[in-house]
Order: sequence, then structure tokens, then C-alpha cells
Amino acid sequence: MNNKYIDLDFAKLDIERQKRKGYSEAVYCECKKDRELIEIFKTFNVNNQNVIGTRASKEQYNILKKEFPKIKYNEQARILTLISKEVEKVGNIAICTGGTGDIPVAQEASETAEFYGSNVTKYFDIGIAGIHRLFDKIDEIAKANVIIVAAGMEGALAGIITGLVDIPVIAVPTSIGYGASFKGLSALLTMLNSCAEGMTVVNIDNGFSAGYSANQINRKIEGK
Amino acid sequence: MNNKYIDLDFAKLDIERQKRKGYSEAVYCECKKDRELIEIFKTFNVNNQNVIGTRASKEQYNILKKEFPKIKYNEQARILTLISKEVEKVGNIAICTGGTGDIPVAQEASETAEFYGSNVTKYFDIGIAGIHRLFDKIDEIAKANVIIVAAGMEGALAGIITGLVDIPVIAVPTSIGYGASFKGLSALLTMLNSCAEGMTVVNIDNGFSAGYSANQINRKIEGK
Amino acid sequence: MNNKYIDLDFAKLDIERQKRKGYSEAVYCECKKDRELIEIFKTFNVNNQNVIGTRASKEQYNILKKEFPKIKYNEQARILTLISKEVEKVGNIAICTGGTGDIPVAQEASETAEFYGSNVTKYFDIGIAGIHRLFDKIDEIAKANVIIVAAGMEGALAGIITGLVDIPVIAVPTSIGYGASFKGLSALLTMLNSCAEGMTVVNIDNGFSAGYSANQINRKIEGK
Amino acid sequence: MNNKYIDLDFAKLDIERQKRKGYSEAVYCECKKDRELIEIFKTFNVNNQNVIGTRASKEQYNILKKEFPKIKYNEQARILTLISKEVEKVGNIAICTGGTGDIPVAQEASETAEFYGSNVTKYFDIGIAGIHRLFDKIDEIAKANVIIVAAGMEGALAGIITGLVDIPVIAVPTSIGYGASFKGLSALLTMLNSCAEGMTVVNIDNGFSAGYSANQINRKIEGK
Amino acid sequence: MNNKYIDLDFAKLDIERQKRKGYSEAVYCECKKDRELIEIFKTFNVNNQNVIGTRASKEQYNILKKEFPKIKYNEQARILTLISKEVEKVGNIAICTGGTGDIPVAQEASETAEFYGSNVTKYFDIGIAGIHRLFDKIDEIAKANVIIVAAGMEGALAGIITGLVDIPVIAVPTSIGYGASFKGLSALLTMLNSCAEGMTVVNIDNGFSAGYSANQINRKIEGK
Amino acid sequence: MNNKYIDLDFAKLDIERQKRKGYSEAVYCECKKDRELIEIFKTFNVNNQNVIGTRASKEQYNILKKEFPKIKYNEQARILTLISKEVEKVGNIAICTGGTGDIPVAQEASETAEFYGSNVTKYFDIGIAGIHRLFDKIDEIAKANVIIVAAGMEGALAGIITGLVDIPVIAVPTSIGYGASFKGLSALLTMLNSCAEGMTVVNIDNGFSAGYSANQINRKIEGK
Amino acid sequence: MNNKYIDLDFAKLDIERQKRKGYSEAVYCECKKDRELIEIFKTFNVNNQNVIGTRASKEQYNILKKEFPKIKYNEQARILTLISKEVEKVGNIAICTGGTGDIPVAQEASETAEFYGSNVTKYFDIGIAGIHRLFDKIDEIAKANVIIVAAGMEGALAGIITGLVDIPVIAVPTSIGYGASFKGLSALLTMLNSCAEGMTVVNIDNGFSAGYSANQINRKIEGK
Amino acid sequence: MNNKYIDLDFAKLDIERQKRKGYSEAVYCECKKDRELIEIFKTFNVNNQNVIGTRASKEQYNILKKEFPKIKYNEQARILTLISKEVEKVGNIAICTGGTGDIPVAQEASETAEFYGSNVTKYFDIGIAGIHRLFDKIDEIAKANVIIVAAGMEGALAGIITGLVDIPVIAVPTSIGYGASFKGLSALLTMLNSCAEGMTVVNIDNGFSAGYSANQINRKIEGK
Repeated sequence: MNNKYIDLDFAKLDIERQKRKGYSEAVYCECKKDRELIEIFKTFNVNNQNVIGTRASKEQYNILKKEFPKIKYNEQARILTLISKEVEKVGNIAICTGGTGDIPVAQEASETAEFYGSNVTKYFDIGIAGIHRLFDKIDEIAKANVIIVAAGMEGALAGIITGLVDIPVIAVPTSIGYGASFKGLSALLTMLNSCAEGMTVVNIDNGFSAGYSANQINRKIEGK
Repeated sequence: MNNKYIDLDFAKLDIERQKRKGYSEAVYCECKKDRELIEIFKTFNVNNQNVIGTRASKEQYNILKKEFPKIKYNEQARILTLISKEVEKVGNIAICTGGTGDIPVAQEASETAEFYGSNVTKYFDIGIAGIHRLFDKIDEIAKANVIIVAAGMEGALAGIITGLVDIPVIAVPTSIGYGASFKGLSALLTMLNSCAEGMTVVNIDNGFSAGYSANQINRKIEGK
Repeated sequence: MNNKYIDLDFAKLDIERQKRKGYSEAVYCECKKDRELIEIFKTFNVNNQNVIGTRASKEQYNILKKEFPKIKYNEQARILTLISKEVEKVGNIAICTGGTGDIPVAQEASETAEFYGSNVTKYFDIGIAGIHRLFDKIDEIAKANVIIVAAGMEGALAGIITGLVDIPVIAVPTSIGYGASFKGLSALLTMLNSCAEGMTVVNIDNGFSAGYSANQINRKIEGK
Repeated sequence: MNNKYIDLDFAKLDIERQKRKGYSEAVYCECKKDRELIEIFKTFNVNNQNVIGTRASKEQYNILKKEFPKIKYNEQARILTLISKEVEKVGNIAICTGGTGDIPVAQEASETAEFYGSNVTKYFDIGIAGIHRLFDKIDEIAKANVIIVAAGMEGALAGIITGLVDIPVIAVPTSIGYGASFKGLSALLTMLNSCAEGMTVVNIDNGFSAGYSANQINRKIEGK
Repeated sequence: MNNKYIDLDFAKLDIERQKRKGYSEAVYCECKKDRELIEIFKTFNVNNQNVIGTRASKEQYNILKKEFPKIKYNEQARILTLISKEVEKVGNIAICTGGTGDIPVAQEASETAEFYGSNVTKYFDIGIAGIHRLFDKIDEIAKANVIIVAAGMEGALAGIITGLVDIPVIAVPTSIGYGASFKGLSALLTMLNSCAEGMTVVNIDNGFSAGYSANQINRKIEGK
Repeated sequence: MNNKYIDLDFAKLDIERQKRKGYSEAVYCECKKDRELIEIFKTFNVNNQNVIGTRASKEQYNILKKEFPKIKYNEQARILTLISKEVEKVGNIAICTGGTGDIPVAQEASETAEFYGSNVTKYFDIGIAGIHRLFDKIDEIAKANVIIVAAGMEGALAGIITGLVDIPVIAVPTSIGYGASFKGLSALLTMLNSCAEGMTVVNIDNGFSAGYSANQINRKIEGK
Repeated sequence: MNNKYIDLDFAKLDIERQKRKGYSEAVYCECKKDRELIEIFKTFNVNNQNVIGTRASKEQYNILKKEFPKIKYNEQARILTLISKEVEKVGNIAICTGGTGDIPVAQEASETAEFYGSNVTKYFDIGIAGIHRLFDKIDEIAKANVIIVAAGMEGALAGIITGLVDIPVIAVPTSIGYGASFKGLSALLTMLNSCAEGMTVVNIDNGFSAGYSANQINRKIEGK
Repeated sequence: MNNKYIDLDFAKLDIERQKRKGYSEAVYCECKKDRELIEIFKTFNVNNQNVIGTRASKEQYNILKKEFPKIKYNEQARILTLISKEVEKVGNIAICTGGTGDIPVAQEASETAEFYGSNVTKYFDIGIAGIHRLFDKIDEIAKANVIIVAAGMEGALAGIITGLVDIPVIAVPTSIGYGASFKGLSALLTMLNSCAEGMTVVNIDNGFSAGYSANQINRKIEGK
């Protein structure tokens, strides 16, 4: 329990997490002030840690870019990455979406998994309204080490894929939908109640968490 | 607006519904006292109306049987029927379930649809955990005039079938499940939020309503 | 299961749905980028398919109009239609609303039903606060093949109409209301729990789904 | 603020409420022990107050009857009354139910209203599935000073009656129903969201409260 | 059932409600287009009916004022009134609020009650955090025919007043609050569950409904 | 972090909590098997620790009594206590209830507070339906160091007391009520949303937690 | 009950609360108009009372500053303070947050506690994702008289701290989070259900209430 | 898609799942009739498949034992296993519980993981109320390939463990708790909202699903 951290008063940076947990800490950007973000990125950067920022706005990116010209931003995923030392990508994670509206969440998962060291293959818009689109791809999908399924509205895609493969599936409900979708609650409940065996679930729209866990499993399977 | 009814004080029997709506009134048995049930069945019977009782217990059946030896009871469906004049069965309704736990609701739908004049074909336990069971039957199912799908837990079966056929699907969420299924709420939300086109939904466990509406559509299609 | 689709990477277009399901795929416009929408409409159009876009903004219409001068837009319904080959309209669907606030949802249902091949008659603002307005129209309404009822707040109109007719009723709860209407939840529950026989329900504000299902039933009844 | 009460330690009896509020305190029996109930009834009785006990079981009645031979019990309403001095009944309250399942709640309202001094007329099973039963009675109902409507499932009856009369309506949602009725929540929301003008609502199954308020209004109208 | 109405196509005006229900129809302005509002007000006005518009914006007022120079607007209450023939005000309704945030809802109730013919007295900011403010006024409040209590957050004021008086209380939960107040749900549940006898409840923020019902009771008590 | 515990495999007893937190660990009896309970009580007893068991049934008491003749049981509170060395009681905690139904929860709080070393005074049935009962006692209640208020249904009592005193109030919502009380949710929300200053809240029916926290505050104030 | 207050018509100022409850009344600024706020602050100020305003916007501060040049504003806490006579600060309250997003709520608690007379020490960003940050500080935190823990998302920090100390903990759930955090509901439920002994809870984001109660307990412990 | 199944009419047995998904189908026993269960077990057994039955009652075990003397039953886990050919156990899964009440769910996970081929180590009653019990075991726990954490009430244990290790954690909320735990909802939300990285979640009380997914990951890591 003698891990170190750097105390910035408003934040305490877990600077040894990369050593302790194998992966550096992610920075949740949404509630942070500009000067806070700059200070946090600077501290990690100075300590030669790769930094990943989630839920970052384009404004935040523009401000950070002035300080860190090498920083990258995926606007759809709202992910910032500042790489000191590239992590080798291994294995393979298949990332699927039900519709086009689920793509931003899938991209967040994708950016996260790649940042932490996984190869990613994407299969978008293969939802159940035209299930032949899924069956056309399922053999390819089934070759991954882990599958991520992002789906909103009824969220049934995750269960169907799980029923067809023998690898771990991580389901991400998205807030896409209207009416009784209750901002993702419907898809969340669908996924939690699936009778298909081999699926676990993360929070609504939490592409980061899906990407993180999938990467962790993928790398363990690859012996990393 | 000058329809007649018979006033039993505790109940007002819609004795002309068969004429007005084409179908006789159903008797919801759950909250009724024994003597009330007897009086209601007697009144309809005397007026030469077919009677259907829903949510009936075996005890209620035993009591009514003494008065009406011709009464029939489907224990799984909890449906009582007392037929004065058989209605000709026409067309075809396919009734599907996700699992074996959904069968009682499917049977309620089936008994109802048959009582009101439809042929029924049943496809049980074809849920998404082993989707090849569905694909084996889908061509046959697609030949019906209307499809009823009863499913609990995640309730995804209804959407998948709807995506594969070009006929009306009526989805019945069932209360089968546990944990975050919240007694059918999960399946209900899944069905309401389905992006598959051509599905409508009835209340949780309401096999009667599904059977009634499916029969109505089936008979209209058959020109009745 | 060997249906074809066109893979645009961000979307997989179900180009044979018209053949498979009898009706072409609808495009949910809300989350789509402009260039995505253009590409999707172009692909369907090139393949001689009628296209219907739902939840489309006026901005999207203006952009698409430059590419497809023949495209039509119903602003209240937020529906885009681009017709290659007119579908003959048959039968009749009655579309009713409780109040004036429910009209946009009713228009979405109406546009959808007409696009897919049904005649439509509209009865607006006949809610229960002044029920004589309904009774004045009910005989006319009852002559349709199918009835759609869009109602918010308490949503009681659907049950009352269902109790008076012998044809299928599709109820659409709308999000009109305030306080404990919880954005349509109140009307949704009212409709699901109706004891009137012959009603099925679709998602809150989902005029498209109501129009699609009503059209499907209407055309089957007409032998199409 | 110098009202008196009698302190039984486990309960503090509001012995001057009859003077202060015009009506004696009601005893909620459900959680009370037998000896507590006896002591409470005795104390009120000794002080020449009429006593009304709500949610009383038949067992509680049998025990109290030994002590107070004049006590009366309405089993359906689960109401106990022990009268020292009869209150003159005035005016008229119409009590309506949607179905037979709602009758116990209506009886609780009826017993309460009569206990506190109102005449009551009852109209049971006039729900919307056969709305002609309501129209047959509406002119008679409209002659009351106040109307109570007890209805479960969709609970739409209250709004329809309110739209037809110009007198105050008190709506009582009942827990009758299943599935998405959520033990009366559906009917409660229906009633709260009614756009019919002139309706107020009490808690689910709270026939006592409806009867109490209706009596209060009825007696004020009669100048009591 | 042969009441008349005027059909504007998008709306059916209940032009004889004043005769049938004693009070003219209210116009819910929130979802109406400008030209619709003008047409509705014109129709009622031409027929010599007083008109009341609820949930009206200042913009709507400015537009209507050009057509109807005599129209009045209470901005806090968001109520429009256009009077053809003044109704005599009778009796008295006491309108109380817990805090200052509840005043707009109280004003809506007040404007409504006055429009339909009641005198009103107001008692603002007498909530339970400083209960002596209530006790200072309670004797005065208790002299009204009816009491309206508008309160948000915990909503306890309604129950306390009800426990102190012997006249009907109508409780209006308001959406004032934050966190677990869930936009008025907390206050609504408090009021529905009150054990104080003599209170009924209307929808969250529905000052109109409270004012309408209170006026109805007040006028009946006054023999109107 | 070098605290000791005793590992019984199915449970790990925090045997040094009395030293670390000042108070011994409580045993939640509800899910425990008889042999587990005996082993747990024996282990604490052998180590000379006072033991308190919560949510204990009478059956559990009877079994434990054979092993530990000195064990005590408060049936209403469902609390077991086995004292090795009496803790001196200091200060004073006032425990109030709205109605008689809330008494079991109040007794659980009382037993807990006494076990851990506080004097307790009880004020039962002083709820808001007859608020003069509260005012009669408030000066006495206000002399305590801490107040616990247990109330169900609307739960308003806690806020009213808090508004009248200048000492900490701990509110315990109880599950007493019916209909829209939703098993204590209504009272919980009322208490969380109270605008009276100086109140904090514990879980529904959690008399133990209220008693524990009140004792902790009471003893700190007394300098223990 | 003969406390005085000043009646501003729209508000009734509890001018003797400082005498009665020991602390002056707080002004909830969110719904107040500018002229109302000025009048309220003026009245308290003229009566030599310290004033604290919560949920105040920067605009409100700017307007009040013109009238009261000595007024202070903490923008993060949204707290206004206007001090006539400084209260001596005593004891110590430790205020902890899980993340940086919870800081505004912690600052509201801090400003409140200091205003009413407590010393405060702050420990920000010590949440459970890197628990060594907490353990580094826990001995220091445990020396306070009371601990406030503000945490969103899962809100687990409050329970962990409570398990480690023997002083009262007040938990404030914050609305920080997304998806199934449901605007603080998740953290609220976590805190209410904590099995750690010695924690009580306030409303979501209610830093004021936490600061008020903590100050009250802290000062009582210090003998004030 | 040409997988085989055996059609028992009431159930369609996915007899080739072992080949397709690597693991045989599980039998959900809760809603099954005795004769159905026997037939299902017989069919799998005759086909030399290992069978696992979940949510099985002791009565069901006793009946099946007569047919299959080799069948085993874990009463706490409610799991039946009938082994034709032992699967070699590999790797290691750590299964932790917060309290003793969570043990049945943990046992269900354990039985499942062992059935499908994983070694399991158990750590019970290490919840956060005495966190030193966890720290004593964490180094050992961290050596597993996967961790399962079953916890009810606040469910915080899962997040804390996740923050301390660099291996995948599967969290199972349990329905242990009362009041605002809402039968596991509180723990479910806690787990979904955890900011600790590397956790995924399954349905409330779904030990089977946790065990299945953990086994799948564990075996993949071991190269099976």
C-alpha cells in the first residue's frame, strides 16, 4: 500500500498506476477546468506516462494542443491521447454496433483499447432489423479474442452475438433511442437480462470501460 | 349508443357486445367471488353467448363445473370456456415463445384466439440463446397471417422475428426472469424500443389481449 | 438467409428488404451526419427504391433537396420521402388524436402509412374532455380497416375508441403533458393497462411504427 | 393550540378532533396489536365519540366485538364502526367503479362517507370497455353533490365522468390490474394527468380518504 | 349527448361547455401555433365566451394582444384571459405556498379561480422551516371555503394545514427542488401519502387544475 | 491497517473493531444459519466483547438462548444483546415516531443506542395529523443531545421537528403505508428533500443505523 | 410559539431563527427575483443578522454587490455571505471528495460550515480508484469531529471512510456521473445502503445541508 | 447455421452447443415441471453431454436423483450437475463476497465455473465495513486470472478490489439488503457506475452468468 501519487491539491494523480495496474490512469475531462487539465496532462507527461483523456470537448483539445503539440483527438470518440512511448498492439478485439447512432460509443471503446495495446476490428450497423448483415460477418467476428457490442434502443444485438460465439462478449448499452428507451435504460436492462451465456455489461455509453476491460482480457489471452 | 346490458348490481353484463364488437365479453375471474362468477356465466349462457373466463383458478373451475358440466378449463392458460355455439376457426396465427417459462402466457393467447375463431400453430422454446432453432422454423412461421411472440427476460425474440417476416407481429412480454428483469419490465421495454418494423406490444403477461388482437386481425384478413 | 445489402462502412443498407419484407427500409435521420444521409439516400435511389426518412430536421431536408430535387418533406411529421415508383394506396386507416399537441405524431403515422400504400383519414382533437366530439365521428371512424390513436397526458382516448369498435386499434402514447406525465410514461401505462379488447401499443411518440404496422394490417386485409 | 389528547403511551388519542375538525379521528388498524385496538376503542367510546377503524381484519373485528357488542364490520370495506350518537346523513355522493374488482375500495369510501354524515348512491362496473353502461347512468350520477370514482388498470373512467359533469370528482386509483399496472401506479398517473377539468386524486386504494373528502365537500354544500 | 362544437380541423372547440359544465373550456397554449391560437380565441370570442389560456408565453400574449386589445396576461401565472362578460366572484379560497419558488403555481391557481368566479386570498412563504409563520395565519386561512396549498421539495405544508382545519384542502406539488426531489415527484408522493384527513391532490405544477376544482367546490358551497 | 480479525471461513469477525472504532461489530442475523450465528456469538463472547444482533427472529433467539442464557431479546426491535461488560449510559437521545406503526423501528434505534451507551427518551404517535400532540412535547424533546424521528407514509414529522429545534436530527423513513408510499420511498424522499436545516437521513427501516449514529454523536457531545 | 418574523408579502423572513435555532436562516437564491433578493438581504442586514445565500448565480452576486459592498461570493460553491458579526470558528470538520467533479458540492459544504462557525480541512480527489491516496490521509482525517464525504458515480468513498473511523460521517451524493448514475441516484442509494456503521445521508448535491448539520454536531461537541 | 437440436415440443435442446460454443447448454430449472426436467436431463445424458441445472429446488433434486443416481446437488448454490465426462480444471478464479448473505450467489458462480473447467478459490465476508480483512487477502486474490465479486447492499467491494488489481473483475450485485436497496438495484447501480477501471457487471443474483463468463476468460488465458 505504499504507492506514490502526486498531489495537485484539486487532484491527486495516481502516478504509479501504470506500474501497479499495468495501465496508466485515465483523465475524465468533462468536469475539469482548462488550467486543471493542463496541469494534469503536464504532470503525467513529465513523468513519461501515456495519457488518455475521456469525454473531452473540442474546445479542451484546442487548448491542450497549444501546450502539447503531439496530442491527438478523436472527435467522435471524444478521446484525447498523448503518447510518450507507444504500447505494442496485440491480439484482436471485434467492436460491433447495432446502428450508426451507436458509433461514437464504439469509437470511444476502440480508441481506448488501442491506447492500452489491442488491435481492433470494427463492424458497424449490423443490428437485428436486418439480421443477415450480422450473419455475413459472424465468422469473422468470432475469430477475435473478445467482442464489444454497442447498441441502443432495444439492445438485442449483444445477446444474439453472444449466442453465436464461444468468446467473451462485453455489452455497452447506448443512450440512442427515444420514448421508453429512457436514455439507455431499455438497452441496459435487455443486456443484463440476456439468457445468452458469456456476456457481461458496462454502464450506459461507457465505451471507455468496455474498451479497457476488453483490452485487459485480450492482452491476458495473448500472454501480456 | 342504445346498446343493452344486464345489470347484476355488482356487475353490468355487456350482453350485446357480441353483436356490437363481433365478439362476446371476456370475464376477468381473478377478483370475482364464486357466486358472482356463477351468476355471470349463467346470464351469458342463458342468453346463448359463448363465455370465456381469464385468470381463473382451478378452484373456480371446480365450482363452475357443477353448474355448467360442459365448461372447459386449460389449467396452464388459466382459461375457462363455455361454448353455446362453436365459432368456425379460420386463417392461422403462429404463437412463439422464447423459453419454456413463457408457455403459460402463450397458451392463454392460444386459447383466446381459438375461442374467438382462429387456427393456431405453436412454436415453443426458440429463443435467441440458440438462434438456429428459430431459423429452422422461420419459413413455416412466416406463412401465418399474424405472429404472437411471448418472451421474458431480455425479450429479444420478438424483434428478431419481426425483422425476418412481412406480417404483423404482436409481442407479449412475460414476467419470467429475475433480478433486473423487474417482473417483465425489461422485456416490455425491449419490445417497445425494437427498431424492427411491424411489431406492436401488449401488457406484461397479457396473453389474452395478444390472442384477442391477433384473432381480430387474422379474421379481418380472412374476410370475416 | 442470403439477402444482399450494400456496405457503406458506417451503415449497411438492407437493399433487399423491399423484396424480403415487402417494404423498403426506413432511414432514422436523427443521429446521422449530412454526408452519411446523402450517401444513404443516393444508394437507395440508384437502386430504384422508395426512401422514407424519419425524425429529419428541416436543415437535413434543405441539404438533401439540393441533391434530390424531388424529395418531399412534411415538417410537422419530420418525414422525408423520395419516391421512385409510387405505391398504390388501398383500404383505409383512421388516425385520431386526443388534442392538438398530438398532431405531429399523428402526421408521422399518416405520412408513413401513405408512403407504404394506405389511404388515411384524420380525426384530430377528439379527446375525452369533450367526449361528444368523439361520438359525432365514431361511426365514420369505425368504417376503417385499422385505427391509430395518438394521445398524451392520460392517454384514455385509445381505450374508449377500442371499446366502441370491432377493428384493430394501434395506440401511440405521446410525450405531450407535464408533471407526472413523465414524458409519455403515463399515457404508455394507460394504454398498456386498458381493459378494452383489441388494442396494441407502440413506443412513446413512435408515429412511424404505428403507421407501419397499421399499413401492414390494412394491406393484408385488402389482400395485398 | 391547547387541544387536549389522551396519552396511552403507544398512542396519543386526538380526543378533541371532533370538536376541532368537526369529525372524530379514524383508527388505522393494520399495524395495531389487539390490546392496543381495544384500549383505543374503549377510550374513544368512554368519551362518547363515534369511532371508525380502517383496514381492519375479520380477526380484529371478532376480538373487538366481545368488548363492544354494538360494533359493526363491513368485511369488503374492512371498516369497523362503533356509533355512540348517529350523525344525520345529508346531501348525496355518487360512488362509481370501473369494474367489480374495484368494489372493496368503493365500499371503504362509502362506509366512510356514511359514517361522517353523507348519503351515498353506488354505480358499480360501469368502466370504459362498454361505455354505454356509463351513459345509461350519467344523468343520475350528475345529480350528486360530489362523485367518487374508483378504478384500477388504466383508470380512465374518472376522466370520462369528469368531462361529462359540472360537479367535483374525487378519483381513487385502485391496485387492481397486473403487469405494467404496477399495483395502481398506472391508474394513479392516468388520473393525475387527466385533462378533464374538475378532478382531484387520492392515494392508491385509499377509499377512506376519498370518502372523507367527499363527505366534507358534500356537507359544506349542504350548509353543514 | 347532442352538444355542439365548432370544428377548426386542427381543433374541435367545445363551444357549449359553458352551458354543459357551467364553465368555458380552457385553452392549453403550450403546443399551439400562433395562427391556431388566434383562430381559437376568435371563435370563442365571437361566440361571447370568456376565454382562459394556460401555459402561455409572453410572445403568445404579444401576438394575441394585436388581435384582442382587451386580453390580459399574468406573466408569473402564464395565464391569458379574454373576458366578454365578467363572472361575479363569490366565497373565498385561501391559496398558500411553502416558499417563494412555489408562487408561480399559486398564481396560476389564483388567476384560474378568479376567472371562474371565486374570491382569493394569498398566503405565501409559510413553509415548515419556520412553522410559526403558519400558525400566525392559520385562523384566517381556516375561514375560507377551500384551501389550495402549493409546495415543492418535501411538500409537507399541505398535510400540516389539513391537520389543522375542517375544510377541503387541494394540494399542488410543485417541481421546485433539486436532487432527489425528482422534479416534483417527492412532493407529489408526500401529499398522496399524507395521513391528514381532508386533502386531495392534483398533478405536479398544475395550478390550473387546483384553481378549477377549488372554484367549483367554493361556488357549490356558496349555492352557485 | 494491522487490525486483527478471526476467520470463521464463512465470516471474518472484526474482533478489534471495539478498539478501532470504539464500538463492537453488529451481527446482521437475517441471512445467517443457526450454526453460523452460534459460532459468531461464541467467538465474540469468548473474546469478552458485547454482541448486538439485528433483524433477529424469535426462533434465532430461542436457539441462541440455549447456548447463552444471559442473552436478551427485544421482539419488537428484533434485537439480540449479549453483554459481557455493561457500557455506562450517558447524555440523552429523544426518539420520536409519527404513528404507532413506526414503533418497531424506533425500538430498534432505542435498543441500539442503549447498547452502545446512550440514555433514551421515547415520544410515540406525535405525527402531524394532530400536531398539538407534538407541540405539547417539543420543549422536552429539544433538551436531548440528538433526536431520532421514525416516520412512514408522508414522513413529514422529521422536517417539522427539525424546524423547531437547534440540535441534530436523524430521520428514519419507515415502510409503513400503502399505495404510493412504495414501501418507504415516499417518506425517504420527503426527508431527503426537507428544507428544514439540521436533518440527515438513514435507510428505510434502518433503526439500527439511526441508533448507532445518534449514540456516536451523543457520546462525543458528552465528551466520551 | 411566539417567534417573530418580517412579512415581505412574497416572503416571510424568520428573523428570530438565530435566537431560536442558534443559526440565522439561509436564503435559497435559485428561484428569487433580483428585487426580492435585495429586499431579503436588506432586511436581515438591517436587523444585524449574518446572511448566507445558496445556489446564487454570479449575476445575482453582481447585483447584490452594488447594494452591499461587503458581500462575498464563492463562485464554485455558489454561496453568498454578508457578515455583520463574525462567528468564532471552533473544532474541525474534514471534507473529502471522491473526484475533482465533486469539489463544487464540497465547497458549498465548506462555505456553509465556516459561515456557521466551524474550522474546515479539505481532502479532495481521494476516491477508490486509487485507494492509497485515501490511506495516506486517513489518520489526519480521523482527527476531525465530523467528516463530510461528497462523492458521485458509485459513491463508495463514504462507506469506506466510515468503516475506518469512529466519528460521525455525513455523506453527500453528487450528481457527477453519466448513464445509470441517474443524476446522483446511484450514489444516493450506495450511501443509504452502506453497511458501514456511523454514516447518515443528505440530498443529492446538498452541500449546504451537509455543512449545516456537520457544523451543528461539531459545535455541540466543542460545547457551543 | 446448420446446428442440430432435439425437439421435445415444450423445449428445443441445443444439443450441439458443446461443439459450437465449447460449453454445454445450462438448464434453467425454476419454471420447469418435473416430467420436463427428467426428459431434458435424459436427452442430454443419452447424448453424453454434461448437464448443469440452475435455480433447482431440493424437491427437483430428489426427483431427478431417482432417475440419475450420479446427479449432484449444491443446495446453497441451487445447482444440479450430472457429469458424463469430467472437464479438466485449469487456471484460477477468485470468488469474493462482501458478507455472509452473498455466499449463495458466490456458490452458484463457483459451481458453474468448476463445472465448465476452472479452479476456484473463495474469499467470503471481506466487505468494506472492516476493510483490513480485504487487505489481508488482496495479494493472494490478485494472483487469479479473473475475480468474481458478489456483494449486496451498497455493493462497493467490487470497485475497491478492481482499483487494486490488474486483472478482469466480474461484479455480481446480490439482492441482499432492505429498504432502499430495492432488491439489488442499489448494488447494481453502484457497480455499473464504478470509476474503477476493469470491471464488468452481470444481472442481480446471477452467479451462473458470472461463473460462466469468468470460466470462459480464465480458460482462454490458459490457452484452452
